[in-house]
Amino acid sequence: MAEQPEACRRTLEALVPLRAEVVARYAGRRRVLFAARGSSDNAAVYGRYLLETHAGVPGGLLSPSVATHYRAPLDLSDALVVSVSQSGATEEIVATQDWARGCGAATVAVANVADSALVEQADLALVTQAGPEVAVPATKTYLAQLVAMAVLATALAPEPDALDADLRRVAEEVERLLAADVAAAVDVLAEAAYTVVSGRGLMLGTALETALKLEETCLRPVRGYSYADLRHGPISVVAEGAAAVLVSAADGPMVQPMAELARDLTSRGARVVGTGGDQAFAGAVDVALPGPDLPETLAPLGSIVTSQVLVERLANRLGLDPDNPRGLAKVTATEPPKEK
Amino acid sequence: MAEQPEACRRTLEALVPLRAEVVARYAGRRRVLFAARGSSDNAAVYGRYLLETHAGVPGGLLSPSVATHYRAPLDLSDALVVSVSQSGATEEIVATQDWARGCGAATVAVANVADSALVEQADLALVTQAGPEVAVPATKTYLAQLVAMAVLATALAPEPDALDADLRRVAEEVERLLAADVAAAVDVLAEAAYTVVSGRGLMLGTALETALKLEETCLRPVRGYSYADLRHGPISVVAEGAAAVLVSAADGPMVQPMAELARDLTSRGARVVGTGGDQAFAGAVDVALPGPDLPETLAPLGSIVTSQVLVERLANRLGLDPDNPRGLAKVTATEPPKEK
Repeated sequence: MAEQPEACRRTLEALVPLRAEVVARYAGRRRVLFAARGSSDNAAVYGRYLLETHAGVPGGLLSPSVATHYRAPLDLSDALVVSVSQSGATEEIVATQDWARGCGAATVAVANVADSALVEQADLALVTQAGPEVAVPATKTYLAQLVAMAVLATALAPEPDALDADLRRVAEEVERLLAADVAAAVDVLAEAAYTVVSGRGLMLGTALETALKLEETCLRPVRGYSYADLRHGPISVVAEGAAAVLVSAADGPMVQPMAELARDLTSRGARVVGTGGDQAFAGAVDVALPGPDLPETLAPLGSIVTSQVLVERLANRLGLDPDNPRGLAKVTATEPPKEK
Repeated sequence: MAEQPEACRRTLEALVPLRAEVVARYAGRRRVLFAARGSSDNAAVYGRYLLETHAGVPGGLLSPSVATHYRAPLDLSDALVVSVSQSGATEEIVATQDWARGCGAATVAVANVADSALVEQADLALVTQAGPEVAVPATKTYLAQLVAMAVLATALAPEPDALDADLRRVAEEVERLLAADVAAAVDVLAEAAYTVVSGRGLMLGTALETALKLEETCLRPVRGYSYADLRHGPISVVAEGAAAVLVSAADGPMVQPMAELARDLTSRGARVVGTGGDQAFAGAVDVALPGPDLPETLAPLGSIVTSQVLVERLANRLGLDPDNPRGLAKVTATEPPKEK
């Protein structure tokens, strides 16, 4: 986790020069579709929002089973398909990339392992430079994937270098947030009967990843929701004894709705931890955690670090090992081993 | 709930003749994108899989906030956008449809209210014939939305009438499943510390809708997962005391993996309720519930009825009113009322 500022710098250095290659692969195509699972899927959710809101490029998420189980022949000749897998060895994603090429798509692989099947078989590879991940739950590799998403989306934007000054500040923001004091938030979550996590728009992927990590590492049911999905029903189960973690950028159109959500959850009896946001947001939550000093477009690259610190401290408090959660493997296999 | 066979027949009768209109609106376009929230979004998940696996048409789900909050100008001139809302009055979806038209998309509205904004502003409306929904949680309107999805996807398939004989049998299958004996399954869920629901591919929407209804109606945290997402991490929190509801079609490429998932969850200490599937699947679960005698392409139209019966009986057992859950309104608003 502490290596993240360096992982971030190295990945930026390696990938920014590849923007022209991304543009070349996208030429004549009209959309970017992602194939991913787990944490990589949460990175892709960010990538999709950034493409649509910042670059004006329609995005979407593929359903891998359409490729692997239904083997549906779709016309993807107007698509650039971006496959995201830390190891580059997730069989389902390798197979989906292969299917996508057969359907006419141009392919880009985002992986942390250069000599992996995903990288070797892609038209273009964005190899993240996080170094080997020692802990099972992805931390620095997830951040490096977010960096790759930012490079990809800015490459296709009208002004590819418009965010570069902010991108160069990410590593120091990460460094600062690694020292975040999360003790009061750990108290709230350790005592909660159950926890919901929510974020919206560009921050949705951060909310989903925070929920996944809280659940995997701390072995308790945690639910990640988009703001809208939470409001459309599930909010009714939030009551006394529940905790909520809300992630917000410091600017953009979602800050105010997130503060309103905080007030709503509080009125239902939940204790609310909030990361980032503006002053009104921080005033609406029970425990305010620091977020990055970055624009909304890049806020996920800092905000996730606060979540990681929170997850690690909570696992310690609960007497669990944050680096080796029960029942998790590094290379994720959707299908069980063949001999079963 | 008991009116569903009739709602199904009336909706089929009204919508099947509109297939040619769907084809006309799709002419020259290359994909179908859905805009929806809550239960309607779960119906759209089915619609998307059916389009891709049965009709060979690429599908996808729009992120409404890209329209309503970021107001991103995307080129959707190659898309047919299908907006789904029971009331046709969900502001966010009406606004997203309006944005989509401005982006060049052709628009189809799926709603149960003919004189609604969504219907009035669409290029083509598929008005479902479920009649007024009295209970707050959508049951017959959800089934009618699934019928609309089936009509839409078959309209764009190479042989639009290939599933018609099976479609005409849906109402009687619904009738049969309304009498399903779910007592043993109610026992399992009433005693569970928490519950996960899973399904895959064409049945994923059914799993998500079953989870949403269990949660909204029975006011307990229930998690809906795709098979793959469950395996990629969250399965590690399944332990003694948990229950799982797995929904499977009787045929297709997902039956065997669903049986394997049942065995895996059982080995982790969960008690497993299974709807549908084949003999091996029924043998792998603790409590087997009946599914429809329909091909996988249409199985969601029957399977959800078993889930509805289960939710109603469980609510009764828990002393809750299944027709008026706490904290839910019929017209869903993502934003809180303005005066707040």
